[in-house]
Amino acid sequence: MKIAVCQINTTVGDFDGNVGKISNNLKKAREAGCDLALFPELTLTGYPPRDLLDRFSFYEKAQRALDQVAKEAKGIVAVMGTILENKESGNPLYNAAVAVQDGKILYTYKKVLLPNYDVFDEARYFAPAPHPEPPFSHKGLKIAVTICEDIWNVEGVFTHRLYAKDPVEELAKAKPDLILNLSASPFHHAKLSVRQTLLKDVTRKAHAPILYCNLVGGNDELIFDGCSMSMDGSGNLFQLGKSFEEDFFVYDTENPSLKPAQSLESETAKIYQALVVGTKDYVHKCSFEKVLIGLSGGIDSALVACLAAEALGSENVMGVTMPSPFSSKGSVDDSKSLARALGIEFKEIPITPLYETGLKTLYPAFKNLPKDTAEENIQARLRGLLLMALSNKFNRLVLSTGNKSELAVGYCTLYGDMCGGLAVISDVPKTLVYQLARYANRKEEMIPEATFTKPPSAELRPNQTDQDSLPPYETLDAILRLYIEENQPPSKIEKAGFDAKLVQEILKKINQNEYKRRQMAPGLKVTTKAFGMGRRVPIAQKFNEE
Amino acid sequence: MKIAVCQINTTVGDFDGNVGKISNNLKKAREAGCDLALFPELTLTGYPPRDLLDRFSFYEKAQRALDQVAKEAKGIVAVMGTILENKESGNPLYNAAVAVQDGKILYTYKKVLLPNYDVFDEARYFAPAPHPEPPFSHKGLKIAVTICEDIWNVEGVFTHRLYAKDPVEELAKAKPDLILNLSASPFHHAKLSVRQTLLKDVTRKAHAPILYCNLVGGNDELIFDGCSMSMDGSGNLFQLGKSFEEDFFVYDTENPSLKPAQSLESETAKIYQALVVGTKDYVHKCSFEKVLIGLSGGIDSALVACLAAEALGSENVMGVTMPSPFSSKGSVDDSKSLARALGIEFKEIPITPLYETGLKTLYPAFKNLPKDTAEENIQARLRGLLLMALSNKFNRLVLSTGNKSELAVGYCTLYGDMCGGLAVISDVPKTLVYQLARYANRKEEMIPEATFTKPPSAELRPNQTDQDSLPPYETLDAILRLYIEENQPPSKIEKAGFDAKLVQEILKKINQNEYKRRQMAPGLKVTTKAFGMGRRVPIAQKFNEE
Repeated sequence: MKIAVCQINTTVGDFDGNVGKISNNLKKAREAGCDLALFPELTLTGYPPRDLLDRFSFYEKAQRALDQVAKEAKGIVAVMGTILENKESGNPLYNAAVAVQDGKILYTYKKVLLPNYDVFDEARYFAPAPHPEPPFSHKGLKIAVTICEDIWNVEGVFTHRLYAKDPVEELAKAKPDLILNLSASPFHHAKLSVRQTLLKDVTRKAHAPILYCNLVGGNDELIFDGCSMSMDGSGNLFQLGKSFEEDFFVYDTENPSLKPAQSLESETAKIYQALVVGTKDYVHKCSFEKVLIGLSGGIDSALVACLAAEALGSENVMGVTMPSPFSSKGSVDDSKSLARALGIEFKEIPITPLYETGLKTLYPAFKNLPKDTAEENIQARLRGLLLMALSNKFNRLVLSTGNKSELAVGYCTLYGDMCGGLAVISDVPKTLVYQLARYANRKEEMIPEATFTKPPSAELRPNQTDQDSLPPYETLDAILRLYIEENQPPSKIEKAGFDAKLVQEILKKINQNEYKRRQMAPGLKVTTKAFGMGRRVPIAQKFNEE
Repeated sequence: MKIAVCQINTTVGDFDGNVGKISNNLKKAREAGCDLALFPELTLTGYPPRDLLDRFSFYEKAQRALDQVAKEAKGIVAVMGTILENKESGNPLYNAAVAVQDGKILYTYKKVLLPNYDVFDEARYFAPAPHPEPPFSHKGLKIAVTICEDIWNVEGVFTHRLYAKDPVEELAKAKPDLILNLSASPFHHAKLSVRQTLLKDVTRKAHAPILYCNLVGGNDELIFDGCSMSMDGSGNLFQLGKSFEEDFFVYDTENPSLKPAQSLESETAKIYQALVVGTKDYVHKCSFEKVLIGLSGGIDSALVACLAAEALGSENVMGVTMPSPFSSKGSVDDSKSLARALGIEFKEIPITPLYETGLKTLYPAFKNLPKDTAEENIQARLRGLLLMALSNKFNRLVLSTGNKSELAVGYCTLYGDMCGGLAVISDVPKTLVYQLARYANRKEEMIPEATFTKPPSAELRPNQTDQDSLPPYETLDAILRLYIEENQPPSKIEKAGFDAKLVQEILKKINQNEYKRRQMAPGLKVTTKAFGMGRRVPIAQKFNEE
């Protein structure tokens, strides 16, 4: 039997668009002689639909979309993800997979394991099935279905077992000939190898090949990388779908042909591509075409400009430099060179007159008090105000350019440089920003060399550099990774070789600046723990971590 | 046996402070001849600790706090809430109640039902106990313990059963002499009567009196109203704790004396008091003393100033009026009168010079394009910038003044009037703002009459009023309530008597402005569905509700 793995980019709530993509893929699958076509998790609704799931009309539209696909699946079985009603006690919906053909529903499967950690809230919406539905038969094959997390509890892969049940173990008892998995598994660095280890374990346990269809594309903070797979019953990888783009491949159960796996060359390349897709999909799925970026002459905004130009086309990107009395000539020149190299529109709008008027306006209140962060923030906020004015006037989405290191310690201005609809690199530590910026220059020099070599500076007072108030970024990023991503207590961070006082200072800054991050734009997640929906920390609290 | 119900205001992560409050109450309870003292849910950690629960040192501190309370509970049983470790599969913690005395743990109970809807994320952190722990015996009484949600699944009270299990039913089989409940049940309007209905049903089912100890005080978005209760086995309310302040009362099982229930006179008064406490606790638990409010002359900022003065003392509140070329003289005068009546500090800082410099600065980009919301937003953002400058310079928290109606339809400026650390009335619809403002004037006129009678206006262009772009607030608020709070589909909203086209327009505006609300400050929740952590809607999506 030939099975098509249809790795598509769905949009949350876009039932017509999602059904359209399914129809196109069914056509392609029929033309390729397939008997079955497999789609990602929650194909009809998009992932994650979040609280739209509370709307009854959302459910009704999903039902209508299911009927429509059933009718269009002529002579082929479509296995797609959707929501179904739970009439018993518990949450009112199931996260389900439905197999349809010729207007009929052949089989339904309800997700057993509902992830409810980090960015996942599935226990908020769905009732878990008590057991996995037994396999269904088609063309003489016993086909088992699973949905994403259902295959993530294989013993031996993770140290702490989140779930008592293992649906794979239960399904293995039915001796399936084939396992299907519909996934919406978001990207973070090095995740592909975790998934491969997992799938191998599933095939070993069930002695059956697995077809893994993962979602691709960006939805708010989440970027799905695709990388769908087919693996034989001994855990050999046969096919690997494209990273970060739609793909379609056919697995022949009788004659599985080894297609060499094509993966992006490096982790840096993957993260870069993730950010390109995340930016593109956020902007387009929000119905925008054009964006606006404040260019400071620094590495962060330069990287965001490169990503945006690649994501949206340079004709849709505008860079704006907004020099203050403290901006170096180099910064303006570097921004100009960057804009020229990228071929993006460029504007220079000085903030000095506004800044001076602001100081005069505030003089009756500030009198001769010494200058401090208040005056620095005024500059950042005037830039935010100008970007937003251009955004409003010309209907361009502002991309904010803050990196993870500065958002962590609050080295950023709320309503200033934090302005924007999408925080493109909010999950990228500063040291990785440099690596990604090098990658952006891989073909030709987009970002001028000076932007790499000069000491990073906010240029909000004379001769300021980031290292006046922060440790070197190598040190800061290492501490941040241990604390935020690896969730280590301070004692362990110190044991990793960092000064106890410095660690305390950094941790204090992280916690004191939660209020800024609460108001940040959605940011693209590329690490195991990003600021945003996957990290929920109270603001009014008094926990001093020791 | 005499039992003290200790309704205290805990702070998240403030282990020392929380233990201190427990100690004081144990002393009081001993002095009153009590054998047992009951505290609210998660007493030691504060509620809700959210992702602080992921930190191992948070767990360690909770363990140490438990040991400390155990030692201090000399000759009295303290029943308090804390976190305990789950060593089996599943989430690593339990939400537990522990009874301690004389340095020993007498009994532990683990929460069975974990709320994971609206503002609750308990399935993110905790493992549910499979069954309620049987009652423990003390001084000849069989005492059953329950935690908050455990008593919220009584059959017949709610139409849809969220849980298959009913811990009360199971506990009733053991024929307890008394039921204790440790709660952290947040306030929303009319909630007290829901709780009373529920408790009555529990006592009827278990044929035993119940002592209900609820948390009091604000923690980020949530306001706990206290209103702890004692009820006899026939569902008669014996005692009712104070609303919105700490309280302590003693229930004598042998001689339960009916203390007349003291509840605030009206729902308006309750909501007003909720906002006062929410503001006070947010500001203080964030370690601030002083606040700053932009006064527009309108009803929203006037109400917030009254609430702040009551919450923090008028000496800690500063009002700033920032007139533009489009501000009426009345607006400035009304703000002045308000500040004078409240006895708060007052500043007038005109934005006209900044606005004019801004227009000049943007002229090369804007040229002679017609004026639109871009110019209106510049004014709002300049005001935000000035408030934030004062906030930075004088270490005052900015309170933002947007109401629920305008946040719903996006009639507010991101980074402008949305600036602030706390959105005091973001869950208060405009029509209720007027009622609360009248209540603020209950003793003497704080808010000038003109503020009530003039048509509401953002004053961002000549002769603008809110009703240029919005329906009358009575209509708007009614539609918003049906859509947001009651989760009605548009067809039902229309059937309630609203124009179909208007309903579509409003719903479209609500959904289009999700991006603004994603970046709003935490807002105090007073209705059944507030914007913020309890309403999680994707931004990049294409769901058209019909």
